[in-house]
Amino acid sequence: MNVKELLYEGKAKKVFITEQKDRYLIRYKDDATAFNGEKKGTIDGKGAINNTMSAYFFQLLESRGIESHFVEQVSPTEMIVKRVEIIPLEVIVRNIAAGSLSKRLGVAEGTSLKLPVVEFSYKSDELGDPLINDDHILALGLASEEEITILKKKALQINEILSEYLEQSGITLVDFKLEFGKLDNGDILLSDEISPDTCRFWDSTTKERMDKDRFRRDLGNIEEGYKKALERVLGGER
Amino acid sequence: MNVKELLYEGKAKKVFITEQKDRYLIRYKDDATAFNGEKKGTIDGKGAINNTMSAYFFQLLESRGIESHFVEQVSPTEMIVKRVEIIPLEVIVRNIAAGSLSKRLGVAEGTSLKLPVVEFSYKSDELGDPLINDDHILALGLASEEEITILKKKALQINEILSEYLEQSGITLVDFKLEFGKLDNGDILLSDEISPDTCRFWDSTTKERMDKDRFRRDLGNIEEGYKKALERVLGGER
Repeated sequence: MNVKELLYEGKAKKVFITEQKDRYLIRYKDDATAFNGEKKGTIDGKGAINNTMSAYFFQLLESRGIESHFVEQVSPTEMIVKRVEIIPLEVIVRNIAAGSLSKRLGVAEGTSLKLPVVEFSYKSDELGDPLINDDHILALGLASEEEITILKKKALQINEILSEYLEQSGITLVDFKLEFGKLDNGDILLSDEISPDTCRFWDSTTKERMDKDRFRRDLGNIEEGYKKALERVLGGER
Repeated sequence: MNVKELLYEGKAKKVFITEQKDRYLIRYKDDATAFNGEKKGTIDGKGAINNTMSAYFFQLLESRGIESHFVEQVSPTEMIVKRVEIIPLEVIVRNIAAGSLSKRLGVAEGTSLKLPVVEFSYKSDELGDPLINDDHILALGLASEEEITILKKKALQINEILSEYLEQSGITLVDFKLEFGKLDNGDILLSDEISPDTCRFWDSTTKERMDKDRFRRDLGNIEEGYKKALERVLGGER
């Protein structure tokens, strides 16, 4: 599939328009940013790892009835996806307190939550992706009440599928961020990526971090952490 | 009713235990704070204004079927209330964008919201009363799903009653903060206060502020703003 032009360059990916009017090509980059762009760096091999892991998870989810934008992986760092209009919300699911939740609500990192928590953030670099509630979403016209219900339901289904799968690989899915997009007909598809950039993966026994927290918190062995996460995911059951 | 001992001193009120086991006495203070205690000052006459206005609104709401902790105003700055256990949530209702909503979501102050927005903040000085969503409330065990539904419903009913009443007095109710308490039997009562400290009151025509923003933003004529709001409230229909 021939690439026509760059549509959008994000912090970790480039999105290209292709010859085919209902397809984009996504190229995953090694660039890493954190804290709303304040911290910048490069993680060697990240683009290929995140692309490969996302492709794997999208196919796993597809097989379990969760539709996504994924069509085909076409190179180590590239995938073809369906053209969707991204809903400007980050949908975050949390099983264990960590990161911003721990800080905002004063809950020690590592505390199991009584039930999975779904959060919405308003996708806005300028505003720092602020947490918002359902009423804010309706008042800002970001999604309808019905769409909010669908997003929450899908997010919790995905959490169940991924948590169960990862646990068999010795990984605890602490939390993760999803994005969704809409097709012209209004159908809502899982979009963006599912990778160590967007998930917290902890070794189920040692609690070792295998995700972007190694970069955010200068924990060292960043590339190794990403690689280990991918190997475990592709390895499936141990 | 004889006061026995100070139970709790807040930024704007003191709560005393009384001889009667199911009653507290609340004394409203002239002390003013803003920005989570960073800004401090005194507003002459505020205690009496807030007590009198709160007593008036609690009675207005009672007559419209909204139960509160209010029993009786016993002096310019004091009221007797039912003993409740305060639910550690601030319930905020917004009709027009202002303050923290404008800042967080990038919506110009004064913008009418498509529908009234209900927000919950977790009452914690240490954490700066962070915005939380329904799932956070459940995960932290701050309220049950049923209680959340009751809080939202009551907050919207109160918004309708107060907005309609105030509009007749030439005041636009921009937003306000409520707190609720629980009786031993689990009944949820409106508690705390309803005053220029906890509401944004704008002159419906000139948009002049008659509330704590005069203090927060150094707009001058603070006492006059509070007095004007009370006069309008007590004056009822113009």
